[in-house]
Amino acid sequence: MIKITFPDGTSKEYREGITSLEIAGEISPRLAKAVYSATVNGEVRDLTMPLRSDSTLRLNKWEDDEGRHAFWHSSAHLMAEALESLYPGIKFGIGPAIENGFYYDVDPGDGVSITDSDLPAIENKMKELAAMNLTYKRKEVSKAEAMELFTRKGDEYKTELIGELEDGTITLYSNGNFTDLCRGPHLPSTEPIKAIKLTSVAGAYWRGDEKRKMLTRIYGITFPEQKQLKEYLDFLEEAKKRDHRRLGKELELFTFSPKVGLGLPLWLPRGSDVRQNLINYLTSLLRKRGYKIVTTPHIGNVNLYKLSGHFEKYRTSSFQPISTPEEGEQFMLKPMNCPHHCEIYNATPHSYRELPLRMAEFGTVYRYEQSGELHGLTRVRSFTQDDAHHFCRPDQLREEFKSIIDLVLYVFKILNFNDFTAQISLRDPEDKDKYIGSDENWERAEQDIIEAAREKNLKTVVVPGEAAFYGPKLDFMVKDAIGRKWQLGTIQVDYNLPERFDLTYNGSDNQKHRPVLIHRAIFGSLERFVAVLIENTAGKLPLWLSPEKAVILPISEKFNDYASNVLEILNNSDICTLIDDRSEKIGKKIRDNELKRIPYLLVIGEKEAESGTVSVRKQGEGDKGSMKIGDFIAFIRSEISKELAD
Amino acid sequence: MIKITFPDGTSKEYREGITSLEIAGEISPRLAKAVYSATVNGEVRDLTMPLRSDSTLRLNKWEDDEGRHAFWHSSAHLMAEALESLYPGIKFGIGPAIENGFYYDVDPGDGVSITDSDLPAIENKMKELAAMNLTYKRKEVSKAEAMELFTRKGDEYKTELIGELEDGTITLYSNGNFTDLCRGPHLPSTEPIKAIKLTSVAGAYWRGDEKRKMLTRIYGITFPEQKQLKEYLDFLEEAKKRDHRRLGKELELFTFSPKVGLGLPLWLPRGSDVRQNLINYLTSLLRKRGYKIVTTPHIGNVNLYKLSGHFEKYRTSSFQPISTPEEGEQFMLKPMNCPHHCEIYNATPHSYRELPLRMAEFGTVYRYEQSGELHGLTRVRSFTQDDAHHFCRPDQLREEFKSIIDLVLYVFKILNFNDFTAQISLRDPEDKDKYIGSDENWERAEQDIIEAAREKNLKTVVVPGEAAFYGPKLDFMVKDAIGRKWQLGTIQVDYNLPERFDLTYNGSDNQKHRPVLIHRAIFGSLERFVAVLIENTAGKLPLWLSPEKAVILPISEKFNDYASNVLEILNNSDICTLIDDRSEKIGKKIRDNELKRIPYLLVIGEKEAESGTVSVRKQGEGDKGSMKIGDFIAFIRSEISKELAD
Repeated sequence: MIKITFPDGTSKEYREGITSLEIAGEISPRLAKAVYSATVNGEVRDLTMPLRSDSTLRLNKWEDDEGRHAFWHSSAHLMAEALESLYPGIKFGIGPAIENGFYYDVDPGDGVSITDSDLPAIENKMKELAAMNLTYKRKEVSKAEAMELFTRKGDEYKTELIGELEDGTITLYSNGNFTDLCRGPHLPSTEPIKAIKLTSVAGAYWRGDEKRKMLTRIYGITFPEQKQLKEYLDFLEEAKKRDHRRLGKELELFTFSPKVGLGLPLWLPRGSDVRQNLINYLTSLLRKRGYKIVTTPHIGNVNLYKLSGHFEKYRTSSFQPISTPEEGEQFMLKPMNCPHHCEIYNATPHSYRELPLRMAEFGTVYRYEQSGELHGLTRVRSFTQDDAHHFCRPDQLREEFKSIIDLVLYVFKILNFNDFTAQISLRDPEDKDKYIGSDENWERAEQDIIEAAREKNLKTVVVPGEAAFYGPKLDFMVKDAIGRKWQLGTIQVDYNLPERFDLTYNGSDNQKHRPVLIHRAIFGSLERFVAVLIENTAGKLPLWLSPEKAVILPISEKFNDYASNVLEILNNSDICTLIDDRSEKIGKKIRDNELKRIPYLLVIGEKEAESGTVSVRKQGEGDKGSMKIGDFIAFIRSEISKELAD
Repeated sequence: MIKITFPDGTSKEYREGITSLEIAGEISPRLAKAVYSATVNGEVRDLTMPLRSDSTLRLNKWEDDEGRHAFWHSSAHLMAEALESLYPGIKFGIGPAIENGFYYDVDPGDGVSITDSDLPAIENKMKELAAMNLTYKRKEVSKAEAMELFTRKGDEYKTELIGELEDGTITLYSNGNFTDLCRGPHLPSTEPIKAIKLTSVAGAYWRGDEKRKMLTRIYGITFPEQKQLKEYLDFLEEAKKRDHRRLGKELELFTFSPKVGLGLPLWLPRGSDVRQNLINYLTSLLRKRGYKIVTTPHIGNVNLYKLSGHFEKYRTSSFQPISTPEEGEQFMLKPMNCPHHCEIYNATPHSYRELPLRMAEFGTVYRYEQSGELHGLTRVRSFTQDDAHHFCRPDQLREEFKSIIDLVLYVFKILNFNDFTAQISLRDPEDKDKYIGSDENWERAEQDIIEAAREKNLKTVVVPGEAAFYGPKLDFMVKDAIGRKWQLGTIQVDYNLPERFDLTYNGSDNQKHRPVLIHRAIFGSLERFVAVLIENTAGKLPLWLSPEKAVILPISEKFNDYASNVLEILNNSDICTLIDDRSEKIGKKIRDNELKRIPYLLVIGEKEAESGTVSVRKQGEGDKGSMKIGDFIAFIRSEISKELAD
């Protein structure tokens, strides 16, 4: 008998050679149908692999990454089987599971191409094969056997891969007539694969090398239930509608220019206003909470980054140093604001009575990303951090953490992000040497963070071993309106920079002491956050953030004078307003301006001009009746106050 | 007889061989005493040089640069004569007139040093020699003669200089026992040199080459009247008190860190607030005037700058391009915002009805300056321009110019800069080929600028030939509180970038047309402007610009609670307020906070705590009586409104 221990700590004895699938079946037949792989002693395995000794066991279901991974990896093999039957002689590169589904890179042979229009036929073949409930069979082979098999098959991609493997570690998996070089694990059979969708075709260089052959990459996704596929496709449709890149262009918020450079956003007036509204709002919150705002340059001497350690980190992977024509100086685009803030801290002496010192900057930083990795505003080469550094005494750490959590929660609430968790990253207790800072400080800081999160009633996940080498941290993961998770907000303790920059304060004992540094951001990057906001609201930004609050639509040119008057009154009242005085029909003007997501449309005709009113329509909601101009101003102000109320 | 034509266009006949000094004497004996050099046919000469043919003549007095130049150059020789008599064997480098006074670089010989403490003795010797009214005698010599003279004297600096001169062009000037290699011109004698002050001693490498010998540079200044010297020394004293570098440190406005890099300002919280107050104020003005605000990155691909022409201009003299670790891209720190703004213009189509498009950005740009040329905030390597670009139709140029002049005058008035002139720079009518753009456009634009300035009643100077190659311009020169002139504000027409970036708009004829581009800045650079503001106000910034409006001074710790209440009320009312709750005597607290130039000091004791009031003191003016807190808030708001009233 062997002893199997489950994740909840319970254990049970089973006969030697039992499989994970059989154990699942003993627990319940329903469970056996819902598990897709097993994690045995920390390694993910086929459910059908016999267990030979005492082991820990986790049964991976759809909800588990390892479960979905096996499901989608098996689906990739199913697609390969379908392809081989439809395109005899087709050769295969690699076919992994990915975050959402799977792909396979294939070479259909000279003169043969696979395009989007071929996907339904492949999909149908997959469904036909899946319905046969064929098993996935694992086989261990020698390198020579593997090489012989794929040489015979004439698949030079697989033989290239085999050539790089060590003998004794090679496994093959077969489903139906298809056999693949593969580590696994896989499903026991195709039986659970009930819903299949091939989503797109793209080109991909063999092994990512642009000097080698361009293969055809076919993407797909599968589910155990049709309902899940439908939900997923609906989600994709919704995500596409909300895509900030599309909305950013439609609403004229931002643009990119290849001449200026990829990944360097140019904020158009409307987007720049949204960004500035965010900055202004946060600034006023910060001031009320005792933050000091500073402004620092976007470059620094390389010596600054050698001192901070960032040079080592960014030297080869980021923008290269800038030389000067004389004097042999070298500067770097700043990848972080912290070294500049440490120098500001050091510009004046500090007493224990002044701490905590909260120093904030909306600082634009520059980090190189490969062009293929750039994505709208969420992955860029320049971004503005809503950055702050708290210089505090060790005994102030918990209160500072609480004050930052407070601020983050306050801002999330205003912005209607109500579903979030906090991840607390601690030291690896097994490997304390790799962290800087004393044991005592670490223990205290970790306790402070955990306690602060508890006192603030945060939903937390504590992850040992995930702390940075310089200190523990807390990150906020936020769920958006269509269920996607975004990491926003981070609070990080740092024992490293205070050492490197020799930061000190005068204690009550009149001795020099070392302050603790806390890095914190609420949004992380304004660029990324605006993208999240656009996608979360589908472009319908809250009134206070909207670049314009209203647009005036005169019914005909006769009313342009009155319309201009209203425009001036509103703009002088700091209610940013546009006018659409094109000679178009009022219906078209309403439709056009609805699309721009301007919150209020003010229709002006004879009645309004005579009575000094505007006819108010709310974007997406229609007519709200007429108001005196002064009342409309008061109304807008009160709506904004409501949005920003605690 | 020869005909002499004067600057006013009148002319008169004189005998051949007459000197400029004799002509001055014929006009009036007083004039003869007040002239220091003559400009004959455009060349500056000694007054005692005989005139041999028909000539134009300008007699240069103290008010003229050429007059002061001769005066101070002669003073340098006078100092040299004094030095030679006090330090026999001393050797001389060069000794020019400069903007304010003169210097001489000397080598007093091994083991001999000249320091500040020696200056009074040298000054006295100069006064003694000046009183002898010795003449400055000019002599033309051959290269051999000159070489022989200085070789005999053993002055290797002069012989090095002579070696580089062409034979037939060499002149010597002697005063008393001192003879110098010199082009002149000089005063007729030392007689007018009545007031003498040697100001400082510094080290200076021979020929500015750090590999050569360090000479001793002695600075001085002289005047025709004691009164002028006193005024000048008072001015220096006042300028020193107002020096923005000193006040910037004292008031904790900004700092520089050698680790971050020379010339890269770090704005401390108080300075950052001043800067932001300026930006916020200007932004609200801009919005009301129809400007659109954009935000662009601080780097651009080199191709952008090749297209704009800036690459050619900055390639060797500025920060060098930034490489990327992959993909072989090259970026430059942006030296200008215009190329980015042109790309934003090109991101969307434009109709003639939308123009003028006024695009503004507070854009931080980077330009390399040699470290020796850096000076506080007035000469830096990174600065933020209050930049805007007006894209307009050619027929809108005059109205746009007027609107910009309006804005500049409005801002100058708010900031109490009431003494300024406008310089209008036009094409060189003799050399039209070196300018880009059609004749018709230039003529129209020049006329538009002149007319706009006239309509706005500007005091103007029109300077042909000073236009940039891409268009005519208008610059504002502003006089500060102690009489110094600063160039602030520029409006420049540009026909070049619209061509290079192929900017277009759809005309009413439905054809593509080329817009005109106007660059404009009100301050030029926020850094430089803050420096000017600090020096102009001696650090006493207007209330609306002050980082804090008030500081609360509790008389003793007993009143700290009430003081904290008041602090919170004021800060929540957006009246930025500090508290000084040190356990110091109230007298000391008042003195300390007066020095910080915080506009209002609020003293709080028993009476105030009981009656819910504050005792108000105005910085530099003393007690203003007590006020209810609400009244103080209203008072501050009304004071700020007054400052910002049109």
